[in-house]
Amino acid sequence: MSKNCYDDETFFQGYKKIRESQNNYNDLLEQPAMRDYMPDVRGKKILDLGCGYGRNCVEFAEGGALRVVGIDSSKRMLETAKKESVHPNVEYMRLEAERLHEMNETFDIVYSSLVFHYIEDFEKLVLDISSVLKGNGVLLFSQEHPIITASPDKGLDWNYDDKGREISYTFTNYNRQGRRGSHWFIDDVITYHRTMGTIVTTLADNGFHIDALYETAPKPFAVQKYPKLRKEFLKPNFLIIRARKMRILKEGLMKNETRRFLL
Amino acid sequence: MSKNCYDDETFFQGYKKIRESQNNYNDLLEQPAMRDYMPDVRGKKILDLGCGYGRNCVEFAEGGALRVVGIDSSKRMLETAKKESVHPNVEYMRLEAERLHEMNETFDIVYSSLVFHYIEDFEKLVLDISSVLKGNGVLLFSQEHPIITASPDKGLDWNYDDKGREISYTFTNYNRQGRRGSHWFIDDVITYHRTMGTIVTTLADNGFHIDALYETAPKPFAVQKYPKLRKEFLKPNFLIIRARKMRILKEGLMKNETRRFLL
Repeated sequence: MSKNCYDDETFFQGYKKIRESQNNYNDLLEQPAMRDYMPDVRGKKILDLGCGYGRNCVEFAEGGALRVVGIDSSKRMLETAKKESVHPNVEYMRLEAERLHEMNETFDIVYSSLVFHYIEDFEKLVLDISSVLKGNGVLLFSQEHPIITASPDKGLDWNYDDKGREISYTFTNYNRQGRRGSHWFIDDVITYHRTMGTIVTTLADNGFHIDALYETAPKPFAVQKYPKLRKEFLKPNFLIIRARKMRILKEGLMKNETRRFLL
Repeated sequence: MSKNCYDDETFFQGYKKIRESQNNYNDLLEQPAMRDYMPDVRGKKILDLGCGYGRNCVEFAEGGALRVVGIDSSKRMLETAKKESVHPNVEYMRLEAERLHEMNETFDIVYSSLVFHYIEDFEKLVLDISSVLKGNGVLLFSQEHPIITASPDKGLDWNYDDKGREISYTFTNYNRQGRRGSHWFIDDVITYHRTMGTIVTTLADNGFHIDALYETAPKPFAVQKYPKLRKEFLKPNFLIIRARKMRILKEGLMKNETRRFLL
């Protein structure tokens, strides 16, 4: 994300329009699920990685969080956040996810909504997040589902019946991981495809315990508000993972054990 | 699996033919990956859940396992196993996965190859496996990938280019979990579709730590042996999960903690 697409005028206006529309997928699918999996925020220190407009930061602070730091690499997003999402317990900082290790503060919760698929080096990201998380701290993130990030462009997706209704979904190149270009308002929005296996195993290999994995399906309220959303029962949409940083128990190692983790 | 499809003559002969062919997916894709994730078997007590012909049981025993118990619900499979896969450290028992809780023996490793998608109640299965696993014991299993089990029948799958080469894969009903019928040699082979989210979260909710999740992709040896296998880079195939039964630490609970797990 060194050249941040959210700082492109066309992209920003397109994104803004979607986020402000009644039927956007964030509000109907992703955010309600993220709320289900968010731990109790009261008294917690929270980092919002890719905070965008800062709406979640304020929500956490209003929910009782002791301190919320919102970071984003987009100047534009942060300008909006500083105007529209103000709370005494919230601070915004311009920082790319790739430079997270530069923070010298630790948090109880790292929250990240729909950012990870823009990040090239997932293992570095996981290690950086671990470095700003307290022991037993929680990482909650969402990203585009690997079935969606798999196809090289948006040319493959829905198939329709003769009445124009979605009946199935087509994808390719699932087991070919790496860079993808896609067209979302502007050309060359770069995303990175990783399999579910890579995502889960990279977390586990780096000391995280996965306690929930969820692939968003529409809730009744969302289908009622936007009946076309029923099509999202046909495919996975967003991937949500909640993981806990395990504390390494140094004392009391048993025979043949190299590490013991405490959860 | 109360009426076991492997005891149907047509199914059994079809299955036997595939397993004996040079280019079957078990030998090319699933088994090599399962070997990668199998813990050291030396000195271990191992349960093979759905042992089939018993080939893995003998392999574990030859690799140094102290005791291997192979269970299967198919009389026919076990007859073959008892004739063809004999080792002093291996014992076969006819037992349905659904009756696993009736065993009164515990194991270091529970191994299960391509059985779980036949089981209706996944949470009961996970609890039953936990009851026969020692603390810190390992569950290693493979099953059909959720993207493959999703579609109600085998009518949806590959799409081809004008030269007949596979270019993409089509599926549907991912977020509608439950029973599926499919045609594999005979009609009405019943499988159950669960999302990746349900599989992972059910394991975590019932005290398992997932340390590896892998979606099989062809290895170079397999592509060399059977070049058509390249198509399997386009979609996920089998799902493999290795999980560890966490030991609950009863002593030393910290404030606000209800359970602590030791890994």
